[in-house]
Amino acid sequence: MALDPSRTVAELKDLRELTGDENGAQRLAWTETWEQARGWLRELVADTGAKESIDAAGNQWFTLPGASKRAVLIGGHIDSVPNGGWLDGALNVVAGVEVLRRIASDGKPPVTLRLVNWADEEGARFGRSLFGSSAAAGSMSDQDELRALTDREGLALPDALVAHGVDLDKALDARKELESAAAYLELHIEQGPVLESLGLPLGVVQGTFGVERHRITWRGQAAHAGSTPMDKRRDALAGAAKLALEIREIARRTGGGAVCTSGGVVCHPGIVTSVVETAEQLLDQRDLNAHRLAMMLAEAKAASERFAGEESIDVEWEKIWSIEPILFDDTLLGLCEESIREVVGMSHRLPSGPLHDAAEVARAGVPTVMMFVQSLRGLSHTKLEDTREDHLEQSVAALDRLTSKTVDWVAEGGGR
Amino acid sequence: MALDPSRTVAELKDLRELTGDENGAQRLAWTETWEQARGWLRELVADTGAKESIDAAGNQWFTLPGASKRAVLIGGHIDSVPNGGWLDGALNVVAGVEVLRRIASDGKPPVTLRLVNWADEEGARFGRSLFGSSAAAGSMSDQDELRALTDREGLALPDALVAHGVDLDKALDARKELESAAAYLELHIEQGPVLESLGLPLGVVQGTFGVERHRITWRGQAAHAGSTPMDKRRDALAGAAKLALEIREIARRTGGGAVCTSGGVVCHPGIVTSVVETAEQLLDQRDLNAHRLAMMLAEAKAASERFAGEESIDVEWEKIWSIEPILFDDTLLGLCEESIREVVGMSHRLPSGPLHDAAEVARAGVPTVMMFVQSLRGLSHTKLEDTREDHLEQSVAALDRLTSKTVDWVAEGGGR
Repeated sequence: MALDPSRTVAELKDLRELTGDENGAQRLAWTETWEQARGWLRELVADTGAKESIDAAGNQWFTLPGASKRAVLIGGHIDSVPNGGWLDGALNVVAGVEVLRRIASDGKPPVTLRLVNWADEEGARFGRSLFGSSAAAGSMSDQDELRALTDREGLALPDALVAHGVDLDKALDARKELESAAAYLELHIEQGPVLESLGLPLGVVQGTFGVERHRITWRGQAAHAGSTPMDKRRDALAGAAKLALEIREIARRTGGGAVCTSGGVVCHPGIVTSVVETAEQLLDQRDLNAHRLAMMLAEAKAASERFAGEESIDVEWEKIWSIEPILFDDTLLGLCEESIREVVGMSHRLPSGPLHDAAEVARAGVPTVMMFVQSLRGLSHTKLEDTREDHLEQSVAALDRLTSKTVDWVAEGGGR
Repeated sequence: MALDPSRTVAELKDLRELTGDENGAQRLAWTETWEQARGWLRELVADTGAKESIDAAGNQWFTLPGASKRAVLIGGHIDSVPNGGWLDGALNVVAGVEVLRRIASDGKPPVTLRLVNWADEEGARFGRSLFGSSAAAGSMSDQDELRALTDREGLALPDALVAHGVDLDKALDARKELESAAAYLELHIEQGPVLESLGLPLGVVQGTFGVERHRITWRGQAAHAGSTPMDKRRDALAGAAKLALEIREIARRTGGGAVCTSGGVVCHPGIVTSVVETAEQLLDQRDLNAHRLAMMLAEAKAASERFAGEESIDVEWEKIWSIEPILFDDTLLGLCEESIREVVGMSHRLPSGPLHDAAEVARAGVPTVMMFVQSLRGLSHTKLEDTREDHLEQSVAALDRLTSKTVDWVAEGGGR
């Protein structure tokens, strides 16, 4: 059976019909609609002869045995955010099915091929993303926090899991699934504007950004907007305003795709007749290089101290969260680039701002690469998320070539 | 009977005992505590022979008839915000009583002297300040809006007024109280840091600032903080940050005491992982000169358009409220300055940022002046509000001299 990328597009539309509504995709993890999507996937794969198994963390595996047990993995996630898009996560899985079909029809492969549908990548219901992949990677270390999570209706995460056959206490048993993994491949929509702005359908993902996420509190003095002369003010908003502008210069000086964002400022008392006493500012900094990321954070901190001095206000930093950059495998980056060039002529290397299951797998030591397909207007997590159909078909063809090249590489002793 | 400024301080402490608690003054207008304070004031004035009357807007008048019906008015307000300070409004009234005593003991004055305790200056309960003075000035023109106001318990303003003998429909009848007014004097705490920073106890108030109050909405595009390169962003916060800093330059360039304040910015979606799509910014600009105030507004608007262009975002202005500057009477400014110099040696002219009842009286065409006494740390509307006792006593002595000079001026045909 020849690869038919147009079938992938048709199947994605079927999935949209089956599990979406007028507001978008509704495949929230650990729900009936999600189970329905998993059942639909099961039927789709059945013809290929790949054998299904659900691991201890609820991840859905389809295994096509090869001459060697060493396995090339293709991963994605069929769960979506509420009112989500039709492609985020699902493209990877459905494109993987088409590749599985093609390889199965070619006869027993030299190495094992496995398609994995990770459980609860989005974390949209309980606020914890990458559930299934972090269990498989063994990086899940917050079991106590997970036990305490509840959804909007007050249902606890462990209870939601049990209804889908998962025992939270045993979720880490999913680690054994990666024991035979030699390489991991993931196709995903970009969810950003870079490829569209370059006019390119496909790109090679170098890795996922490291992230520094902080809350910065500026403390000045509330004072009457009418009776306090300009030179007598200690205006907390002035510190936040200066930093909101300065972090953009820091990102530009750093270059290489580094980004810094101030997602908001909350002012107290926040009334028109008072100088701002307290401003709480959110900061998010990301880069692919750990050293440069640390430098950006240090520069922002130094700038904030300078601004606090200039404005006679106080500044305090509190870390919300951080993660190291995760770099993908050099050989696989090269294979991915070759595959893209063969299909569309030109490729581009770019980092991934959002985290993905691929980052968890890479952290576990499995050589990993991701391929991005262009997103229209950079939109995702909305029903407006979209990608041109010719680009979707090209992404399936490129994933197919990447899989073949990776199978050959692993068969020759490459990978882990 | 000689003037005894220390008595004023003692009486203010009595009032604090009677109508305050551990959180501060509780003389909220149209409440039992406020009535209690008015009753206390009635008893205080009784010995002077001045005759009490309550006008159609609930203002409490004490009239000491003179040879002429033309009247010099001393005004203040005994109402406070909840958890307010002991001096804001009350100082003016209680100091006025001491002046009334001294003048009454000197025999029948050449012109009539009237002390007015304005009703609901603060507007703390129904959100409408300067109630009584705007009725007397005839500038109250929002009867329909007033009728719709309710307090936190849902009680309508007209019903609260009726319980204190005031019929909202007839409140403007209070206009006749100002028919005989030849001049109006008001002593007040500064509620700002200027006199303290100059080391001066007393100052002459030139007038009340004109105010331009606007809501500025910046509209950009929400975008993922990780996947959106810096040069692809349309960040609404950048516009607000630039303007928050620029208005300070505008105020400094304008000089002469002009102030510009951004009291707050509200960001949407306001999350750490997204570029800000919408930022709603509050702007307050004040100056004593109408032309300069208009220039400041025009400069801020022009700057906002420039920033919107630089950031590829939209900006929209919505006026919240504005008022023209109100200048006090030149002759009275001079008399006030003389009085202050006689008592403390040095004086200083400064504008008033906050509005006061005096502004309403001046708008009605009555020659008016205010005197400020130093506020410690510029604080008011809090129980921490305070003024040194020697400064309070000096303010009573200076108000007494100002009253004498004004009586002489009016007797000689000055004033209205």
